[in-house]
Amino acid sequence: MANRQKFRRIGIVGAGSMGSMMALAFSELGLDVSIWDVKADNVDRLLDNAKNVKSLKGSLDGFHKLEDFIRSLDKSPRRLFLFSITHGPPADSVLNQLRDQLKSGDIILDGGNENYRNTERRQNELKSKGVAWIGMGVSGGYQAARHGPSLSPGGEEGIINDVLPLLQKYSAKESKTGRPCVAYIGPRGSGHYVKMVHNGIENGMLSTLCEAWGLLHQCLGLEYDEIGKIFENWNATGELKNTYLVEIGSQICEQKRGPESDQKGKGNRRQCHMLDEVLDKVVQDDDDTEGTLYWSVMEAAERHIAAPTIATGHFLRVASGNRAQRVKVATNLRNVPRPRQVKLSENDKARFIESLRLAVYASFLCSYCQGLELIARASTDEDWHVNLETCIQIWRAGCIIRADHIADILEPALTNAAERHIHVMNVKLIDEVAAALAHNYQNLKEVVLRAGEWDAYAPSLSASLEYVKYEAGTSLPTQFMEAEMDLFGAHGYDKPKVKGEDPGKPQKGAHHFEWKPA
Amino acid sequence: MANRQKFRRIGIVGAGSMGSMMALAFSELGLDVSIWDVKADNVDRLLDNAKNVKSLKGSLDGFHKLEDFIRSLDKSPRRLFLFSITHGPPADSVLNQLRDQLKSGDIILDGGNENYRNTERRQNELKSKGVAWIGMGVSGGYQAARHGPSLSPGGEEGIINDVLPLLQKYSAKESKTGRPCVAYIGPRGSGHYVKMVHNGIENGMLSTLCEAWGLLHQCLGLEYDEIGKIFENWNATGELKNTYLVEIGSQICEQKRGPESDQKGKGNRRQCHMLDEVLDKVVQDDDDTEGTLYWSVMEAAERHIAAPTIATGHFLRVASGNRAQRVKVATNLRNVPRPRQVKLSENDKARFIESLRLAVYASFLCSYCQGLELIARASTDEDWHVNLETCIQIWRAGCIIRADHIADILEPALTNAAERHIHVMNVKLIDEVAAALAHNYQNLKEVVLRAGEWDAYAPSLSASLEYVKYEAGTSLPTQFMEAEMDLFGAHGYDKPKVKGEDPGKPQKGAHHFEWKPA
Repeated sequence: MANRQKFRRIGIVGAGSMGSMMALAFSELGLDVSIWDVKADNVDRLLDNAKNVKSLKGSLDGFHKLEDFIRSLDKSPRRLFLFSITHGPPADSVLNQLRDQLKSGDIILDGGNENYRNTERRQNELKSKGVAWIGMGVSGGYQAARHGPSLSPGGEEGIINDVLPLLQKYSAKESKTGRPCVAYIGPRGSGHYVKMVHNGIENGMLSTLCEAWGLLHQCLGLEYDEIGKIFENWNATGELKNTYLVEIGSQICEQKRGPESDQKGKGNRRQCHMLDEVLDKVVQDDDDTEGTLYWSVMEAAERHIAAPTIATGHFLRVASGNRAQRVKVATNLRNVPRPRQVKLSENDKARFIESLRLAVYASFLCSYCQGLELIARASTDEDWHVNLETCIQIWRAGCIIRADHIADILEPALTNAAERHIHVMNVKLIDEVAAALAHNYQNLKEVVLRAGEWDAYAPSLSASLEYVKYEAGTSLPTQFMEAEMDLFGAHGYDKPKVKGEDPGKPQKGAHHFEWKPA
Repeated sequence: MANRQKFRRIGIVGAGSMGSMMALAFSELGLDVSIWDVKADNVDRLLDNAKNVKSLKGSLDGFHKLEDFIRSLDKSPRRLFLFSITHGPPADSVLNQLRDQLKSGDIILDGGNENYRNTERRQNELKSKGVAWIGMGVSGGYQAARHGPSLSPGGEEGIINDVLPLLQKYSAKESKTGRPCVAYIGPRGSGHYVKMVHNGIENGMLSTLCEAWGLLHQCLGLEYDEIGKIFENWNATGELKNTYLVEIGSQICEQKRGPESDQKGKGNRRQCHMLDEVLDKVVQDDDDTEGTLYWSVMEAAERHIAAPTIATGHFLRVASGNRAQRVKVATNLRNVPRPRQVKLSENDKARFIESLRLAVYASFLCSYCQGLELIARASTDEDWHVNLETCIQIWRAGCIIRADHIADILEPALTNAAERHIHVMNVKLIDEVAAALAHNYQNLKEVVLRAGEWDAYAPSLSASLEYVKYEAGTSLPTQFMEAEMDLFGAHGYDKPKVKGEDPGKPQKGAHHFEWKPA
């Protein structure tokens, strides 16, 4: 289709770390790139840095004035913008500056981490002008933005098909097959929604892996380099093979710093492990520059999807971010033991590390289940028709949550279900997933028990263990909860073994008992 | 103030279970009561039932026509309405029917479980008409609505002071002091917010207690009557004394059913424990008739308050509600062990039960911390000036979360802080709370470890254990998480022992390291 060839220039709005990386990447693909930012400094810094990049093919033109930036795109038969601005009010403010100069036929790819409701609002606002706003998740961080990220565009299908060939060139490619990690996700806000959930899954995994790291370092007393080696082995083969977070975890553990390594130029301390330079304070969501994680938790809560691995990981991050408060509470709670170092025989140590590997895998898989079930629920609620197998496919490379083994299990099973028109709402009904969770239950249990004994931190690992138990429980103690709620709230209950009630639908029970006449 | 004496009649909108109970209660207090419902049946049923209630003092007048209902209130110098309609669209729909007939000076107490944002919207809509909309939490379920609930009115202070004498007569009274469990909470949506959080805390407690019940029944193999006796003892003295959920838990365990006990008239089975009639399916939130719990989780996520005990309890409920899906997953995950019965010596059993009592107490206290910190955060964000000690005071009686020991710890400490103008944002900084959590850490740990070993369900108990650990941790493994995020996302980190960074504020770290040049 000739139509698909016509994008010769792209206009990037925002020259922050993501926008700048994308500018370089598109230039390397042979496109001419125009870039503008509300802060002229950001544009100048990019142009400065670009001087040293020999691989650029298309021109890279920076603009201080919005009018000049827009004019530079006028020669294109159809103007294509890529928006890379912090979500919410900052994005609205920049869009408002741009709005009057937009015209029918313009396409804007919003590559920010936007809340899908804002995306849908902007799509509606711009529709009457004939401007297409595509909410496009860009996964993989600034590293991937430079070399090929995973992309999840959502919006008008025809428009997305027009830009898809370009996005396919830009995106990461699956290593075995070369398939590009981008596809049309669905209408409206579905693309940004899928990216949001990606970040939720990411956090369940991050939390799980940092808990594992804590066990290895704080309890088994392993040196960073030893842990790096263990993660390298985990990443090489088996259930955790080619798992990005494990791969970079290995590098992080082994990384030493040179005198020049701090971008702030303060690298004047003796060579040491970089990890010792990093405080245990994760603030990413506290300053609200990236809302995706807490939105995921909110969405899971609202749509009634059990997502405890993801949620507990969020709460751990929240606690970590407010270190000042933690330090005060720690003084007050000084009798609560800290993680303690244990002496294990070499055999027991090796055995534990192997259990830990499989527990991490099981908890990663729990994160995936929770995230995919949230997408399935939202897709049904919002009538998006998102294919879960498409999500797995675009998460094969480029993105933070990529994990070969999990994708190898999920993709064929989901594709198979789709071919048989089975709409998967519960990922644990996939035989291979169920088998993996059941098979590794004992490992997860073993690790959570040891973490408990050793007073180590395991919020997400223990949440995953509980999740596996209660998601597959046929006699939950909620029988007692239901009775309590019927007593005080006349909430109603269903009866065991009564047709239409057991299992029945998730709706108010048919019976009420006057436990205590009101 | 003469003003305060003038409410002789109250108009109740909605004759569901809560509205009906309130109608009877207000009539007993000597008020004339008008009541109307969109469903005439509801009104008729109430009037029928009322015939057998000998204690009514004021008249109880039911209406099928809204006009007649409103006209019945016209003689009052100031019309007072009590709204008892399901939150959200149903409440809006009923308000819309009423709206044109409202006039300046009217007061509407909304006693439903409304989302505070809807409350604030209605307050704004009605303000120009001179109509006061008071968002009033009513805690304690239909049982308490009949005999005296805990009330949390929020809105215009002057108006609330006008109705306060009446609400004080209606509300529950603290048993020792006779103080009424109602007070002005704060402006705008604060009253409904406090009720929402009450229900969040309630769920952390419900989940904790049902997990304890499960351990006693499924693992220790105790009969319902034995558990009833244990809960009775717990409720009699010590850390769990006069804890409503424990008190009714005892009754529930011992309750047998007679042939006539089912309101649906299906009580034709032999006498048995009522608990055996109740399925493990808690659907309360699935049909969205009560949003308070999932709103609490959403609010905690959005406002960055760690609330894992409450959130994991929600997810357990979600899983429980969809029993059909659980049963299917259970078939797939049949190798995951079920809670198993263990043989303990009488001594060990007694020791475990005592640990369990204190673990339950610690987890209840964690729920309280999480809820109160959410209120403190929201109050600061929204400029509500809610007093936490007021919350504790109104939760002393009438409501579901009442727990004497916790209130005895918290109320004086919070009052003391308020007198010294200390704004408590972190409840764990209160010495007595810290001491209680530290003192019972080993019990919580012991119980979670045994639950793990026995494959029992303990999502909220284990979430509480992790919460205590990481809220007081000074070397969290999030050090590793932060490094991973800096690698892929250039998220920035702070350094240990650097002034202004450690502990520093919860904001983006000052440093970035190019772990892997992009």
